[in-house]
Amino acid sequence: MNKKIAVLPGDGIGPEVTAVAVNALQKVAEKFNHTFTFEEGLVGACAIDATGNPFPDETLQLCQSADAILFGAIGHPKYDNDPTAPVRPEQGLLAMRKALGLFANIRPVNTFKVLADASPLKREIVEGVDFVVFRELTGGSYFGAKGRSEDRNSAYDTCTYTRDEISRITELAFTAAAKRRKKVTLVDKANVMETSRLWREVVQQYASNFPDIELELMFVDNAAMALIQNPRRFDVILTENMFGDILTDEASVITGSLGMLPSASVGSKVALYEPIHGSYPQAAGKNIANPMAAVLSAATLLETSFDLMEEGRALRNAVEETLNNGFVTVDINPTNNLGTREVGEKICSFI
Amino acid sequence: MNKKIAVLPGDGIGPEVTAVAVNALQKVAEKFNHTFTFEEGLVGACAIDATGNPFPDETLQLCQSADAILFGAIGHPKYDNDPTAPVRPEQGLLAMRKALGLFANIRPVNTFKVLADASPLKREIVEGVDFVVFRELTGGSYFGAKGRSEDRNSAYDTCTYTRDEISRITELAFTAAAKRRKKVTLVDKANVMETSRLWREVVQQYASNFPDIELELMFVDNAAMALIQNPRRFDVILTENMFGDILTDEASVITGSLGMLPSASVGSKVALYEPIHGSYPQAAGKNIANPMAAVLSAATLLETSFDLMEEGRALRNAVEETLNNGFVTVDINPTNNLGTREVGEKICSFI
Ligand SMILES: CC(C)[C@H](C(=O)O)[C@@H](O)C(=O)O
Ligand SMILES: CC(C)[C@H](C(=O)O)[C@@H](O)C(=O)O
Repeated sequence: MNKKIAVLPGDGIGPEVTAVAVNALQKVAEKFNHTFTFEEGLVGACAIDATGNPFPDETLQLCQSADAILFGAIGHPKYDNDPTAPVRPEQGLLAMRKALGLFANIRPVNTFKVLADASPLKREIVEGVDFVVFRELTGGSYFGAKGRSEDRNSAYDTCTYTRDEISRITELAFTAAAKRRKKVTLVDKANVMETSRLWREVVQQYASNFPDIELELMFVDNAAMALIQNPRRFDVILTENMFGDILTDEASVITGSLGMLPSASVGSKVALYEPIHGSYPQAAGKNIANPMAAVLSAATLLETSFDLMEEGRALRNAVEETLNNGFVTVDINPTNNLGTREVGEKICSFI
Repeated sequence: MNKKIAVLPGDGIGPEVTAVAVNALQKVAEKFNHTFTFEEGLVGACAIDATGNPFPDETLQLCQSADAILFGAIGHPKYDNDPTAPVRPEQGLLAMRKALGLFANIRPVNTFKVLADASPLKREIVEGVDFVVFRELTGGSYFGAKGRSEDRNSAYDTCTYTRDEISRITELAFTAAAKRRKKVTLVDKANVMETSRLWREVVQQYASNFPDIELELMFVDNAAMALIQNPRRFDVILTENMFGDILTDEASVITGSLGMLPSASVGSKVALYEPIHGSYPQAAGKNIANPMAAVLSAATLLETSFDLMEEGRALRNAVEETLNNGFVTVDINPTNNLGTREVGEKICSFI
């Protein structure tokens, strides 16, 4: 198989973990006789520094010409405390999602047996947790009209959703649930938000055609509690952009596996794969970041965009073997002194 | 002292726990030679059933004529799956907050030593947690313009904030921080929301006059993680309405003390006190609900609205003694068979 992969390392620890993932993909290509071409593009703070634009046109073109996108992370502290800066790395991320039509962010959350004790939650609560969140990614308050009054003394953001925007991600969530434990939990705030009431309408209507899939309706405040009290109750969580942002981050830490969780952002065309841990600027350049989530993102890429199931499996097995042998970064074992590169080499050696 | 307290038991377990709190307040009045007059009003589902209106005018007048309000909870499952019902209990709650100008909801979150093992989080993470959330309560998407397009195929909600709405709660949060560990964490999504950027502007400007109070800025997704990973890092959390709704509920379960946490909603005039656990309909009428949060809400009422510090202390001590003696409801000790009323009698006997 001959495939072109756009590589967007981005900011912070992005370049380090992405480099490991690219090496692992190379190794897979050799082993299974494929040709993967990698082409790098700029996005985020590094793109602002180089071009003034957080999502340059060349990067858009690169993504559109690729068969899949491997993404690191964006964000830099120099912009964080100045959200009024005219150009910010986040704008690059949002522009990229919108331009590529990446309307669904899919984040599996599961526990790794050897990591059960790394969770802030008690072992009996997180053991066996296995759910996936479908977060809408190109609608809601992220993209609605926003602004200030003329005197700048009041501000507004508009959350908007259309029936179509809700339908297309609902279909993905139900398709996933059908292959899993057959339960979808729609998270909203329908007792307050009109957009949430539209979500309920569309999702309930869709669900009525799939009687073998259970639809559960849950308010977002309740979901924020349930994720901690009983995360095993979830199978597929479906939610809008902002709620998804908050809940996926909450979910990512309950299992203690933040450095291990991949995500996929999909739409109509090319899909994008990224570790969920973000740019983690304090660790940038120190060779201490956990590359496993990036490698698992690459595995998801192989399976989802290229339908290379055996190859994806090989990558996942390599990560698991590395983990089970104790070859891990400090986030998992504080007494360890293996770095990002060393763990990456171990993973490659197990492929 | 001669005081009138409006009692709004509301729905679900509201009436049961409020009855215990009223008994406890009576006991305090006897002991300390005060006269508290209690007058009941309807709000929520019970008000809809009786009058068709979730917040009847008589209840508003009762509240306005009272020196403080003791509130139970609202909500009923028969409305939960039908958010498009023309009248819903939640509307009563929102109308009450707005009409009484209750712009700040104050929720302390702390651990009770004997409950450390009731938390879903590990003991070493929750031990010593002690922070308070200031949630804005009458602005944001809860009260902004909302609606549908004519064909009902798209919906919108508007989140709006003015400088004044932000200033007044910021002042309360900083005043509280000055008496505590001198740290305020502003939680927002300033990398995406214009309203959040206004919050940062106003709060940063306010903070510049209080150099001895540390201002920390945190994105809401990050806060959802930090609450679980390291809740001790927080002292005072300041945030807008919707983020506050989600984060306070998340915070309430990390300590395992959901049945123990009171809250106060304050504004320009009369203040309202309520347990944070909500209506918990599955337990309604079963005499199993934990009345301690309601009693601690009554203690907060005595201290905050009447400046009766010794009396408030007496109530808190009674709750603590009841707890330490193992007189608790099933939520705290599953092998226990003390009910709401029995625990309430114990509390009264310790006053
Ligand atoms: C950086 C930020 C705009 C982004 C988001 O909120 O979508 C991030 O938190 C994420 O979840 O990918
Ligand atoms: C019932 C609901 C409207 C309410 C809210 O979201 O404010 C509740 O969750 C709360 O936190 O008091």
